[in-house]
Amino acid sequence: MSDLDPFFNPRSVAVIGASREPHKIGHVILKNFVDEFHGEIYPINPHAHQILGKKAYVKITDVPAHVDLAVIAVPAPIVPAVMQDCVKKKVKAAIIISGGFSEVGRRDLEEQVAAIAKKGNVRVVGVNCIGIFDAHSRIDTLFLPPFKLQRPHEGSISFISQSGAVGSVVLDWVASEGFGVSKFISYGNATDVNETDLLEYLYEDEKTKVICVYLEGVKDGRRLLKVARKVSEKKPIIVVKGGRTEAGSRAVSSHTGSLAGSDSTFDAAFKQAGMIRADGVIQMFDFARTLAHQPPAKGDRIQIITNGGGFGVLATDELVSEGLKLAKMSPHSEEKLKKYLPPHAVVSNPLDLVGDAEPKDYDFALRILENDRHIDAILCIALFQTAGMSSEVVDVIKRFSDKRKKPIVVCSAGGEFTKKHTRLLERAGVPTFDAPTRAARAIKALVDYGHIMAHSA
Amino acid sequence: MSDLDPFFNPRSVAVIGASREPHKIGHVILKNFVDEFHGEIYPINPHAHQILGKKAYVKITDVPAHVDLAVIAVPAPIVPAVMQDCVKKKVKAAIIISGGFSEVGRRDLEEQVAAIAKKGNVRVVGVNCIGIFDAHSRIDTLFLPPFKLQRPHEGSISFISQSGAVGSVVLDWVASEGFGVSKFISYGNATDVNETDLLEYLYEDEKTKVICVYLEGVKDGRRLLKVARKVSEKKPIIVVKGGRTEAGSRAVSSHTGSLAGSDSTFDAAFKQAGMIRADGVIQMFDFARTLAHQPPAKGDRIQIITNGGGFGVLATDELVSEGLKLAKMSPHSEEKLKKYLPPHAVVSNPLDLVGDAEPKDYDFALRILENDRHIDAILCIALFQTAGMSSEVVDVIKRFSDKRKKPIVVCSAGGEFTKKHTRLLERAGVPTFDAPTRAARAIKALVDYGHIMAHSA
Repeated sequence: MSDLDPFFNPRSVAVIGASREPHKIGHVILKNFVDEFHGEIYPINPHAHQILGKKAYVKITDVPAHVDLAVIAVPAPIVPAVMQDCVKKKVKAAIIISGGFSEVGRRDLEEQVAAIAKKGNVRVVGVNCIGIFDAHSRIDTLFLPPFKLQRPHEGSISFISQSGAVGSVVLDWVASEGFGVSKFISYGNATDVNETDLLEYLYEDEKTKVICVYLEGVKDGRRLLKVARKVSEKKPIIVVKGGRTEAGSRAVSSHTGSLAGSDSTFDAAFKQAGMIRADGVIQMFDFARTLAHQPPAKGDRIQIITNGGGFGVLATDELVSEGLKLAKMSPHSEEKLKKYLPPHAVVSNPLDLVGDAEPKDYDFALRILENDRHIDAILCIALFQTAGMSSEVVDVIKRFSDKRKKPIVVCSAGGEFTKKHTRLLERAGVPTFDAPTRAARAIKALVDYGHIMAHSA
Repeated sequence: MSDLDPFFNPRSVAVIGASREPHKIGHVILKNFVDEFHGEIYPINPHAHQILGKKAYVKITDVPAHVDLAVIAVPAPIVPAVMQDCVKKKVKAAIIISGGFSEVGRRDLEEQVAAIAKKGNVRVVGVNCIGIFDAHSRIDTLFLPPFKLQRPHEGSISFISQSGAVGSVVLDWVASEGFGVSKFISYGNATDVNETDLLEYLYEDEKTKVICVYLEGVKDGRRLLKVARKVSEKKPIIVVKGGRTEAGSRAVSSHTGSLAGSDSTFDAAFKQAGMIRADGVIQMFDFARTLAHQPPAKGDRIQIITNGGGFGVLATDELVSEGLKLAKMSPHSEEKLKKYLPPHAVVSNPLDLVGDAEPKDYDFALRILENDRHIDAILCIALFQTAGMSSEVVDVIKRFSDKRKKPIVVCSAGGEFTKKHTRLLERAGVPTFDAPTRAARAIKALVDYGHIMAHSA
């Protein structure tokens, strides 16, 4: 068992700094646990007998049972004493939410905490962080109430973020879009546990299929890249690097104090380590949900299917701009499609089923193309506004996707009627995008990961 | 009065091919008019006495009153005869929805229609198009029912689309996002009225502030550019060009049959004509709603304000990547901000109000910066997840925006709580984006239009 396991699967949790006042961080965190967590919960507060129905203790050492995880939200100057108590109590993991350390010039205080943790064998996530959200075990130290920050449902994407704000905003957005996550970790100043430790942990984690990382700077780049190379052979890693421009990198240094380094160096290093780079956090999540549900592409020859010519044109432009190729289907596929599709369909690439396409046309086309060895992936444009389209096309696409012969992504834009269907597609494991550019880039990520897999081992 | 005016402001409309059968195009179109249009409506159908409560006529020549606009949805071979009737009836404008002309090899039939129209002084939108939607006058020939294709509310953005599918999808998306439009025109084969005629019309149209164009190919490029140059001095024109890659341009020729031409030629021509180019249709609308509500930027010096360091970093990267500059605020602003903002705020660019920022901090910062001559535009990041943020910040930002001293765009990502506030901001005329990259590009459009304005006249 990894020594990071108590962060994600503790049987008992103490919330140090638990508060009775609803607007306080120590209250929100306790409430998250009381509402969702199934293990034992111990509020620690020297002035309360009971909070949210749970018996409170003056110190963690007063708790009459073993504590796996301590969540610490007390003023910075008190943290060293609290950590001493945790050591006494033989707590193995502590998430220190409290800020007021090196980020405000108190490196001394942070070093004191680090020393206590190291000597006492306590692993620390933090200091100065928003901590952990685990959709499976319901560890939730995000100190913002769910009405402001929605929590995503269970999924297979884990997300490590150097920035608490970036992390929590993404999580909130992901939840409202209906996507799932496995584990989210904001590790703040990385006083002990850093991105590399977390990558190693997620490498082994069965509930994680894809790993997202938001990074601003790296302390031990060599180790990160070594670990990433290993991890990426098993699970895709998608990275967003804040501070890729010179001005951005100056902004990083005033934000986290870490040195960002030159972007081309990072870019080359990410590539070597098999990390897939995204331009921003929404694109990062576009890639993640695609890689979590679709097989990697075996090559770069993409077939477009569409029921709208203009969207076919736009998707073509985007695929080519991403450096991908338009597949040239086999003569056999071409012959069959020409024979059985309605005569006004344009059998080419894009394969244009035109505006009166029905689900059965999509079905026929997909059944022919799934066995075509000249095609590595499908970009399927399904415009739900037209008369011939119905919910059945969702089943048609799901059937193709479930066979896992070739990856497929869908592009489908519009209002409520469309969104009803794209949500169904997403739930069926088919990544769906509102713009050809997003769909094309998601396919590029599948091609990139296929390439990484082929060149590993 | 322009001879295109009857397309948008007719007092009476005949729907030729009106049908009693609900799934038929001629029924959906008639229903749109019956439900929303305030003028006279005449269904034309040789086999019905009455449709949807309106008296039907065998031929348009039987209508006992003047008809301003004919909407034609009958099989292609009948269109010439129907057009002859329109000429007899002295109809001044016809929208021909019917397909089955040059796009399927029947150039002869289309030329016949064009000749009748020209000789008879009838202006034609179409053939082979989805026609017109005018949110103000409620002309609506979109033959897809509103539950599949939502209609946007009244606004000041007009949209000309060479592709019916692209146009209708965008309209549906725009409606569901809560944005407004003025006029939408899909002109199909451009048998008579083309993009340039429409640009000229929208130049004079008081209800249009910004013009969007989706283009795949151009027949008379010289005239388009000449007209665009004139129009862009008065109203921003945003253009998306389908077929910008070689493969995309091949897809265009199988889609609309028009020659796309080399992309660099188009790019240079668009620039010369003062047209702002967008990468895709969502970006086109991002630019449009920004230019419709914010003043153009007088220069390229942008100030970022944020309550999340990571988002400040990402926005910095994006602005710089767009070729914009981070503003260096005046010593006076810097002094004031340092004196009155909370001590942990980072007074720089980005101006980081940090995670506990409150609306009053935004208010103070905006009041100082609105008069700073070293700043041309504000990119304001407002993360609503944090404890200090409340709905008041919407009023604060609206107040700044209403003064129209400098343009502002907001970046704000998240779930329902956030979306509630971004909708309020949009309604207040503040363009709001979920990703720093979208916000940065929108600002770039303001800078570009400022440049176009400064170099015109």
